[in-house]
Amino acid sequence: MSKNSSNIMALVPKTSNKRETVCIFGTGDFGRALGHKLIQSGYPVVFGSRSPWPSSLIPKDAEVLSHAEAAQKAAIIIIAIQRQHYDFLASLEETLHGKVLVDISNNLKINQYPESNAKYLAQLVPSARVVKAFNTVSAWALQSGTLDASRQVFVCGDDTEAKQMVMDIVRALGLTPLDQGSLLAAREIENYPLQLFPMWKLPIFLSLGLTAFFFFYCLVRDVIYPCVYENKDYSFYLAISIPNRICPIMALVLLALVYLPGVLAAIIQLYRGTKYSRFPDWLDRWMLCRKQLGLVALAFASLHAIYTLVIPIRYYVRWTVEDRTISQALNNKTTPFDNTNGWLSDSYLALGILGFFLFVLLGITSLPSVSNNVNWREFRFVQSKLGYLTLILCTAHTLVYGGKRFLSPSSYRWYLPNAYMLSLIIPCVVLVVKFVLILPCLDKQLTRIRQGWERNPQYSEQSNYIINKSAV
Amino acid sequence: MSKNSSNIMALVPKTSNKRETVCIFGTGDFGRALGHKLIQSGYPVVFGSRSPWPSSLIPKDAEVLSHAEAAQKAAIIIIAIQRQHYDFLASLEETLHGKVLVDISNNLKINQYPESNAKYLAQLVPSARVVKAFNTVSAWALQSGTLDASRQVFVCGDDTEAKQMVMDIVRALGLTPLDQGSLLAAREIENYPLQLFPMWKLPIFLSLGLTAFFFFYCLVRDVIYPCVYENKDYSFYLAISIPNRICPIMALVLLALVYLPGVLAAIIQLYRGTKYSRFPDWLDRWMLCRKQLGLVALAFASLHAIYTLVIPIRYYVRWTVEDRTISQALNNKTTPFDNTNGWLSDSYLALGILGFFLFVLLGITSLPSVSNNVNWREFRFVQSKLGYLTLILCTAHTLVYGGKRFLSPSSYRWYLPNAYMLSLIIPCVVLVVKFVLILPCLDKQLTRIRQGWERNPQYSEQSNYIINKSAV
Amino acid sequence: MSKNSSNIMALVPKTSNKRETVCIFGTGDFGRALGHKLIQSGYPVVFGSRSPWPSSLIPKDAEVLSHAEAAQKAAIIIIAIQRQHYDFLASLEETLHGKVLVDISNNLKINQYPESNAKYLAQLVPSARVVKAFNTVSAWALQSGTLDASRQVFVCGDDTEAKQMVMDIVRALGLTPLDQGSLLAAREIENYPLQLFPMWKLPIFLSLGLTAFFFFYCLVRDVIYPCVYENKDYSFYLAISIPNRICPIMALVLLALVYLPGVLAAIIQLYRGTKYSRFPDWLDRWMLCRKQLGLVALAFASLHAIYTLVIPIRYYVRWTVEDRTISQALNNKTTPFDNTNGWLSDSYLALGILGFFLFVLLGITSLPSVSNNVNWREFRFVQSKLGYLTLILCTAHTLVYGGKRFLSPSSYRWYLPNAYMLSLIIPCVVLVVKFVLILPCLDKQLTRIRQGWERNPQYSEQSNYIINKSAV
Repeated sequence: MSKNSSNIMALVPKTSNKRETVCIFGTGDFGRALGHKLIQSGYPVVFGSRSPWPSSLIPKDAEVLSHAEAAQKAAIIIIAIQRQHYDFLASLEETLHGKVLVDISNNLKINQYPESNAKYLAQLVPSARVVKAFNTVSAWALQSGTLDASRQVFVCGDDTEAKQMVMDIVRALGLTPLDQGSLLAAREIENYPLQLFPMWKLPIFLSLGLTAFFFFYCLVRDVIYPCVYENKDYSFYLAISIPNRICPIMALVLLALVYLPGVLAAIIQLYRGTKYSRFPDWLDRWMLCRKQLGLVALAFASLHAIYTLVIPIRYYVRWTVEDRTISQALNNKTTPFDNTNGWLSDSYLALGILGFFLFVLLGITSLPSVSNNVNWREFRFVQSKLGYLTLILCTAHTLVYGGKRFLSPSSYRWYLPNAYMLSLIIPCVVLVVKFVLILPCLDKQLTRIRQGWERNPQYSEQSNYIINKSAV
Repeated sequence: MSKNSSNIMALVPKTSNKRETVCIFGTGDFGRALGHKLIQSGYPVVFGSRSPWPSSLIPKDAEVLSHAEAAQKAAIIIIAIQRQHYDFLASLEETLHGKVLVDISNNLKINQYPESNAKYLAQLVPSARVVKAFNTVSAWALQSGTLDASRQVFVCGDDTEAKQMVMDIVRALGLTPLDQGSLLAAREIENYPLQLFPMWKLPIFLSLGLTAFFFFYCLVRDVIYPCVYENKDYSFYLAISIPNRICPIMALVLLALVYLPGVLAAIIQLYRGTKYSRFPDWLDRWMLCRKQLGLVALAFASLHAIYTLVIPIRYYVRWTVEDRTISQALNNKTTPFDNTNGWLSDSYLALGILGFFLFVLLGITSLPSVSNNVNWREFRFVQSKLGYLTLILCTAHTLVYGGKRFLSPSSYRWYLPNAYMLSLIIPCVVLVVKFVLILPCLDKQLTRIRQGWERNPQYSEQSNYIINKSAV
Repeated sequence: MSKNSSNIMALVPKTSNKRETVCIFGTGDFGRALGHKLIQSGYPVVFGSRSPWPSSLIPKDAEVLSHAEAAQKAAIIIIAIQRQHYDFLASLEETLHGKVLVDISNNLKINQYPESNAKYLAQLVPSARVVKAFNTVSAWALQSGTLDASRQVFVCGDDTEAKQMVMDIVRALGLTPLDQGSLLAAREIENYPLQLFPMWKLPIFLSLGLTAFFFFYCLVRDVIYPCVYENKDYSFYLAISIPNRICPIMALVLLALVYLPGVLAAIIQLYRGTKYSRFPDWLDRWMLCRKQLGLVALAFASLHAIYTLVIPIRYYVRWTVEDRTISQALNNKTTPFDNTNGWLSDSYLALGILGFFLFVLLGITSLPSVSNNVNWREFRFVQSKLGYLTLILCTAHTLVYGGKRFLSPSSYRWYLPNAYMLSLIIPCVVLVVKFVLILPCLDKQLTRIRQGWERNPQYSEQSNYIINKSAV
């Protein structure tokens, strides 16, 4: 899909060209790749190197000079050197005076040095204008032209004009510059490429923990219990039956955990009677990873859907059905059709299908390109109204699935209830509390609080402000 | 996925900073959130308030002054006040002379006031340069840094330079400004956040209506008829059997309705012999919501797919199969394998699978980020060629499903044909007419018309122009 | 989803407006559509035409003048004329001196003329500043406001300032300009809209060829062999059974072909002892279409999933199950449950489900809007780690599916092994070689090579450079 970048190459301009020369210090992989791309985009490029001889690897149209000579030819100098070799730049201080130095370096570990590489560069050459950029782009992607990964280039720097010049270059290379503010942001920008899904860590660890718990719970109930009491080998349950018990449980619990913090926040606001006090930190963090929680829940729900659809193909199920049919035929016995069972079976399946369908819809609207095209009201409609409808359908699906089994004593082995019963606790709590919260009396007060009303303004931290305000 | 925005925070710059001061009138939620974000992005911020005392809620690095004092400190003033409190701005007319006033207000209802809020502000302070912006962004999203919803900021204003200044700020905040033209566009921009999927209304109401019709149709044929004549209770059909009858019908009908307006347009153009006359309004509107129609059709098709795959798990189906098997075994009777049935069953399933597969492919290419990466020719290839192939496969799927039943009298209860027969009407009409239209004789003429040729130029509204043209 | 573009129309500004007048030569479809859109965005528009009379089709607010008069009114002239009518522009040379001419023309064939249209225009009017733009946008999309297809506008030109002016207009129309460099890029830009999925050609032809081979292979083994030797008619296998044999084979083979080039590249680098020598061309091209290969593989895997889930609904399968059950019942015989079969059946299904799940996850992360929001490390983690895990799961799925059948002689008809056995060759080779490559001894050396180390620097093409470097 991103063929354009590789096909529509801008070729080396041979006619009039008014783009400013760019200097690159360092002829390593990234320096060369960037030089190549800059030449393609019409920039004259000059390399500064300890060994100012042209090499076969350096783009043909680029000049190679000594560091000092190269620096004099350009207003912008890209420092494609590793941090530990920055020292020699201090000796070029005079040449670099007023130049824009672009720090593109990355570290090997998060917070490796006390100060960011860009800050260190700025301290070495205080008279230069340092801009941090390009560190999130890969040399290979630049070279091959297949920017399948991110096209975003984070830029920061203390000098607005210098930053603007660098952002123009970024745009000319077909990338998207994102201004991140002053050079203090360089630390975060340098840590960014070292991150591995930081927002996903909490949801994934949480779901791994819960999965392990429910796995052992089901193992005990469904494999070890029959092995001990009935001497039956159900170990093959490990492949499909138990995963298909865990997946719906996880999907339901995680989906409920998406909506639980919103409910808690409302209770806190109602209790405190103001929205002007901060939520506890854990609640804030929880609210920020709701999207990720929801997507992990969707993954479990999808697995549950496939595991369920695969049921009639399983050898165990086919054998069971055939065995039951044959034994009924041999005993000359037929069971009449039970209308209640027909209703229960069909309605729990229908609830599950509709719930899953809405769940997938929620997932699609959380795709960045889709959510970017809806307004805030539409986004909230989908994520809140449709989200609660999904939660209701999925909870109902589980309740109807339980059906008559809730009270049957055979569901309790070693006093352990069926796992799905445990999974119903959080969703039911969320739904009941939410139902209470939308009762007119509470809803009205909550709306007033969210619009800025306070129950005890004199006790709140806002008191001064409010009193002054009324005095004016 | 959008973790960057929250992690890579631009911190408050403490060194040289050349960004211009921004003034914010009003210390409400949105004003404070915006101020916070502006400071993060390196802008000095000064708040204008009736109560010029710093408050704990206002960002620490911001100054709080009286309205007049604050306004003097900045060239850009963001009016974070509700429209009904705008009056006092008229008294600041002198201070605001030549300043850029950014109207960020929203209304509670579409077209609430005779003129847009931005226009009203421009009338109050005629010497200021009013720009409309930021009204589509949510305070919460700004504050938490999780801009999961849209990053687009619609901007409009009569003064190009003022607009440019505001768009620079928008870009610096990591948002995407979209220039919407003059201040007259403010009305539409103010209505935008109040909209709830306006392009989806027609397709959704249409499909709700059709769904209701087919629901009652199937209810009469499949539940009430057997209840009346055979005294059988098929009420549990309501959960799965009837939905799974309605979904494929709706998918097929809506898919055909996607391609019907194109066929109608071609007939109109052929009949009129020109492309220079406007289509009727209803046709224009229909053509603009084809994508939405297609996606609703895809939703029904997906539901149909899951409902179908779930069939063998249903208690009713399992009971029927077992019952039939047992009664055959008891009667010592086996039915031989019928090769024709094998062919019919397998080919209608295969057609359905391929049709659904292409349908999903169409859906994926309509995702904004995918369609943004294909050129116009590729987009038309997918949406037209693959689209018609999908329609052909789905129609064939339904025809083969009908199979031998079309002529069987048992298919007609109370003279009502099976519902799927009704659903075949529109698709078959579309396909037949399309087939006629691609006959060489008609296709050639249509191509000529679409390239600008006219059958009766002297009668067309274009006549003058054409005659003049040939005279030159 | 893209409703905004049609709803939030910028209306014609009637107050102060500082946008520069734009001139359009030609009143054809595209010229009018562009004029309309420009006026909406606040640009005064003047049309240059051979017939300078206003026509009903031309936007009301636009002036229509003769070419020379119109050209004098604007600094930017959009040439909405076909290339073959460019000649007359040479006679306007004096008027067009220094003006920005925007070439928006397209050709009918790739590389139709020796030079690009923009180059030709620049030769005709050497004193003008020619910019290529807008050729990838459709007139219909501009007019209707539904830019469902691409919003990207490729821009190139030798004059940076002129290009900037055109890119400002592009942005004002709500489109995204992409600077492609000098006018030499015009050739590629003009070819772009004529392309039809160029990056997909190789993967699609490859998969068509392989599909045809496996189709005939399965036809011979599964339909012709039983027809010849057992006189049985299995022709209905063509609809589902054989496709469902081909799809998983194709998915597995293509997925392995995604990872084969990376393994080959590693072997070449290890053998040559350097990363500074170019890969053979076929390997480069192969590596660039890996994403497309993977997506085609995913399509086959999805089809396989649906074909498999549909199995219990097929008449043939239902009949077989009933027939076997009845004959067992009649013979008064029951087969005991085979625990090994239970394990084999469940674990091959579970492996398939997990493999497919990860495969879909890979597909989702390759959506442009998702991959744009992950950093390089995350992208590589997903595409490489998760990708290999998917390959391992899918290969294991096929191996367990084979189960005990590998050695059974009945699997070999006419000495032809089962098709799935053939499909295992490439994945197993890739996995074994990859496993060897991650052995510490080889992995260390490979890492060193990829960091720039060379085994025989004196023999490499880099020798000069390296020697000089150490001499400095």
